[in-house]
Amino acid sequence: MIKVTLPDGAVMEIDKKSTPIDVARRISEGLARNVISASYNGETIESTTPLKEDGTLTLFTWNNDEGKRAFWHSTSHVMAQALEELYPGIKLTIGPAIDNGFYYDLDIGEYSVSEKDFPKIEARMLEIARGKHEYKMRSSSKAEALKFYKKQNNQYKLELIENLEEGTITFCDHSTFTDLCRGGHIPNTGLIKAIKLLSIAGAYWRGDETKPQLTRIYGISFPKQKELKEYLELIEEAKKRDHRKLGKELELFAFSQKVGQGLPLWLPKGAALRERLENFLKAAQKKAGYETVMSPHIGQKELYVTSGHYTKYGEDSFQPIHTPKEDEEFLLKPMNCPHHCEIYKTKPWSYKELPKRYAEFGTVYRYEQSGELHGLTRVRGFTQDDAHIFCTPDQLDKEFKNVIDLVLYVFGSLGFENFSTQVSLRDPDNPDKYIGSPENWEKAERAIINAAEDKGLNYVVEKGEAAFYGPKLDFMVKDALGRNWQLGTIQVDYNLPERFDLNYKGSDNELHRPVMIHRAPFGSMERFVAILLEHTGGNFPLWLTPEQVIVVSISEKYEKYAKKVLHLLENDEIRALSDDRNETVGKKIRDAEMAKVPFMIIVGEKEEKMNAVKVRRHGGEDLGMITVDEFSDIIKEETNNSLKQFKV
Amino acid sequence: MIKVTLPDGAVMEIDKKSTPIDVARRISEGLARNVISASYNGETIESTTPLKEDGTLTLFTWNNDEGKRAFWHSTSHVMAQALEELYPGIKLTIGPAIDNGFYYDLDIGEYSVSEKDFPKIEARMLEIARGKHEYKMRSSSKAEALKFYKKQNNQYKLELIENLEEGTITFCDHSTFTDLCRGGHIPNTGLIKAIKLLSIAGAYWRGDETKPQLTRIYGISFPKQKELKEYLELIEEAKKRDHRKLGKELELFAFSQKVGQGLPLWLPKGAALRERLENFLKAAQKKAGYETVMSPHIGQKELYVTSGHYTKYGEDSFQPIHTPKEDEEFLLKPMNCPHHCEIYKTKPWSYKELPKRYAEFGTVYRYEQSGELHGLTRVRGFTQDDAHIFCTPDQLDKEFKNVIDLVLYVFGSLGFENFSTQVSLRDPDNPDKYIGSPENWEKAERAIINAAEDKGLNYVVEKGEAAFYGPKLDFMVKDALGRNWQLGTIQVDYNLPERFDLNYKGSDNELHRPVMIHRAPFGSMERFVAILLEHTGGNFPLWLTPEQVIVVSISEKYEKYAKKVLHLLENDEIRALSDDRNETVGKKIRDAEMAKVPFMIIVGEKEEKMNAVKVRRHGGEDLGMITVDEFSDIIKEETNNSLKQFKV
Repeated sequence: MIKVTLPDGAVMEIDKKSTPIDVARRISEGLARNVISASYNGETIESTTPLKEDGTLTLFTWNNDEGKRAFWHSTSHVMAQALEELYPGIKLTIGPAIDNGFYYDLDIGEYSVSEKDFPKIEARMLEIARGKHEYKMRSSSKAEALKFYKKQNNQYKLELIENLEEGTITFCDHSTFTDLCRGGHIPNTGLIKAIKLLSIAGAYWRGDETKPQLTRIYGISFPKQKELKEYLELIEEAKKRDHRKLGKELELFAFSQKVGQGLPLWLPKGAALRERLENFLKAAQKKAGYETVMSPHIGQKELYVTSGHYTKYGEDSFQPIHTPKEDEEFLLKPMNCPHHCEIYKTKPWSYKELPKRYAEFGTVYRYEQSGELHGLTRVRGFTQDDAHIFCTPDQLDKEFKNVIDLVLYVFGSLGFENFSTQVSLRDPDNPDKYIGSPENWEKAERAIINAAEDKGLNYVVEKGEAAFYGPKLDFMVKDALGRNWQLGTIQVDYNLPERFDLNYKGSDNELHRPVMIHRAPFGSMERFVAILLEHTGGNFPLWLTPEQVIVVSISEKYEKYAKKVLHLLENDEIRALSDDRNETVGKKIRDAEMAKVPFMIIVGEKEEKMNAVKVRRHGGEDLGMITVDEFSDIIKEETNNSLKQFKV
Repeated sequence: MIKVTLPDGAVMEIDKKSTPIDVARRISEGLARNVISASYNGETIESTTPLKEDGTLTLFTWNNDEGKRAFWHSTSHVMAQALEELYPGIKLTIGPAIDNGFYYDLDIGEYSVSEKDFPKIEARMLEIARGKHEYKMRSSSKAEALKFYKKQNNQYKLELIENLEEGTITFCDHSTFTDLCRGGHIPNTGLIKAIKLLSIAGAYWRGDETKPQLTRIYGISFPKQKELKEYLELIEEAKKRDHRKLGKELELFAFSQKVGQGLPLWLPKGAALRERLENFLKAAQKKAGYETVMSPHIGQKELYVTSGHYTKYGEDSFQPIHTPKEDEEFLLKPMNCPHHCEIYKTKPWSYKELPKRYAEFGTVYRYEQSGELHGLTRVRGFTQDDAHIFCTPDQLDKEFKNVIDLVLYVFGSLGFENFSTQVSLRDPDNPDKYIGSPENWEKAERAIINAAEDKGLNYVVEKGEAAFYGPKLDFMVKDALGRNWQLGTIQVDYNLPERFDLNYKGSDNELHRPVMIHRAPFGSMERFVAILLEHTGGNFPLWLTPEQVIVVSISEKYEKYAKKVLHLLENDEIRALSDDRNETVGKKIRDAEMAKVPFMIIVGEKEEKMNAVKVRRHGGEDLGMITVDEFSDIIKEETNNSLKQFKV
């Protein structure tokens, strides 16, 4: 008998050579059916691997990332088998699981394979899967392994084996197929019920462009056909929601080759939307006691020498700006904090006047390789909804909580209900790499955890993830398609107050160092708008959307009445426009749907006579004929429902 | 007899050798008394110079700039005479009139002269003035003139004479004093009734630092003692209103050596004020059909090659920003127009969609020598209230008028009632130096003059002052101290639409070139705030001022009631703060006056009991005891009076 400890701390005595599935069966038959992978003492094993000594066991199902990884990696073996059968003589290299599926890199020699061949390959894979072949791990000596691949003349596997140590070499067999493999498979191929090959691409052996080019085939698989269907719909939906596509369709932003890659131009509708977002946050920040400041987009070398950024201005950055004056150098600002420190320094402060909360929608510039640029999510110039709070160490706790309230208010107002957070603390084994006194760190870390606890956040603590200058709290939101995005951040900073020699006079009449909090609920306006576009598919909350109403008259005869309605709506501060193009009503309705305008008003003879409007909601719901006042009230009510005031 | 033509076209027959004063006497005795200088056939002459041939005569009095110039230049002779008497042997060089007064540059040899000596010099000058000595011009041969100054060993005058042509050399004598002089004097020294020497400084001979250093004494003089008094008060007031001083006192902005000279940091109160100004203009612009856009603060080299700015990026500019990519170059944007042209280019346009009016508060960067920087009026980074209108040539007339309306609205809302304008047209003798067709120029120039006429502007037309790319209209405001400031500008541009190959589809279905209008009513936010500070002395209009009300409780007992009042005011969107420092009421009242807060509310026992407030206006006026509601109404009414809505 051996002792197996489970993640909840429970210890189970089992027969030596029992497998993880046996352990699962002791817990429940259901679990045993679902276990597809496991780890033992921290190492990935098969769910069918006999356990030979005492240890800690974790069981994985499809619902764990580890389980999915085993599932997809196992499917890559099935794909390789199908390919070997269909294209005899091809050479296998590696076939790992990735975030969404798997790939296999192959040297296909003289064969030509394209997406047209995918149905054939998928069919053969499913046939193999249905055979319910067990994945069996088998140890091999180095000599044996080399011999096996020498016979196949597979230089890739030979190279891999050369780099492995004797005693660590394993193969995995299933059906007629054998592959050099470290392990981590599902019990048998029968679990794979749905397969989709996604794309084919070139890839260099070991990612090295001096080495032979291989063929990489990407795929994904699921335990249920339904899950594949949902996944493919998600991919389709993500394509439709691509912010670059929507941004163009909705005329929100554009890029120009002449202005430069990664430097967005905000078109009128996008600029107005961004301004509404900024004003929304400004109003909340005002209530929360922030003060707006404005600083230039460049700073002298000396500023960044003081802040410590200058030494980081390497060859991969925007280079310094020289001037006619020798030795004078300016830098495009990569962040706003050094400027705000200098603003803090313009006068002496007493503890009674703190905290000072300086907010600025500050545009910063950071060089990114052109290959890394992506729409509004990865740009070279972006505007942070930045603020820096200068407070006493004792005020940190309250300030941190207040910032969390603000971030939650922002997420709530914009429909991000689903988010998680990470608290990044010091590495306890490396206390020397951090600036600031241990007492202050202690205080700050406690402040963050208290605040996260107090606000009921769903958080994980990561030790050693703090920056050298202070601990932090990061927010990750899950969008409507279930994708995770890193958004706002709240960071404590002991470094800049030190470097800029900031101080305040305490109640003891002595000078003390303030603590600084950096925070940005949106993160960057560009990135946030991109995420919001993909999250909402362009159907923005009513308070934010570019146009709230479009007025369509059923013929030219009612244009005048349409204009009157438009005017009444505008007087009520409703964003309305009228479609007075020379087009059919049907076409106008279709275009309004395309433009994602939340409400459509249709006016004709009856409406004019009754001094009313016919209202139709985006998506089709008919609100019938009502007066303009009644309609205004609907808009106001829905706006107020989606946008509450921030309460301190 | 000769014929003299006067500026109004009248022709007068007069005896040959009559003087300008004789001519003035023929018009009126009053004018004769006031004439102090004249020009004949475009050349400055003395008012006592005999007229020998037919010609055109202009008479100048103290009310003309030319008259003042003669007055001050004549005073510089008197100063030189006084100095020669007090410091025998000093050498005279030149002594011109300047914008406000005059100076004389002297080689004072071994003497030492300082401001302490000014009273003595002024006294001697007034004594000379009272002698009513006539200024008499006298021709001299070169030889004679050289001989005169050789005797004095005056190398400066010798150098000047060497450079003069025989037959053009004149001296001016008065009393015992003689000076090499081209002329332009008042009739006699008796007109000079008030003199003030202002400062003393070093100045190189001919402004060349390799040449000997001279002593420059600045002074000013007036025909009446009262005028000197007023002038000195004005100087004193201007010092008090210096925007650099007020900006610091009111905590509006600051500079930091580390961030860099000429790069303003807007402090909370200044940023809020600037935001109110921007929002004020945004609201008007929205009504006027402008759309906000946003563009980055840098642009790629190619953008500026296209716009033509790249070739102007000389050694005296901010130098290009290099990146890791070879040959990639970005530039800090010196203006927003190239970016807006690229925004216009993001889609095709029909004439039906024009005009497009793109507005942006765009921050631009231009390098200025550090010696030329001055507070917020001369900076290296500033934000233009920029907009570019893209329209058809036929729309130019209407657009120009609309822009003028907007500019007048801005000036009116900010208390600049006193302004003049200049229309800058082509040089008719140089038609080739302009881009754009003569017909379009004709159209544009007519549009500007029509608009100026139609809007009843006080304008002067300057031919040859247009930029090569289009005619323009500039606005100059006179501030409360009578000083002129160049503010907003409206410019027509045929060049950038050409360079960026902009077009629209006309009603003829062909592509046409739009016309562009650049306009900025404020000019720059930095400069405008500076001028507004100096114009208002920091007493901003009620709608704009940082704090509208300060609440002072007469003792700690009433702090709670003070807070309640504050809260009520804030609910009414009134910008109020309470002074809860531990200071006497007297001190608090004095400080509120210093801070230029328009209203002060004082609360004590009686006020709390009556649920009322005692209100005092900045400057002292007592409004008595009223309810908070009544006070809110006063603020609202005064705000509405000073800030009307813009009407299209």
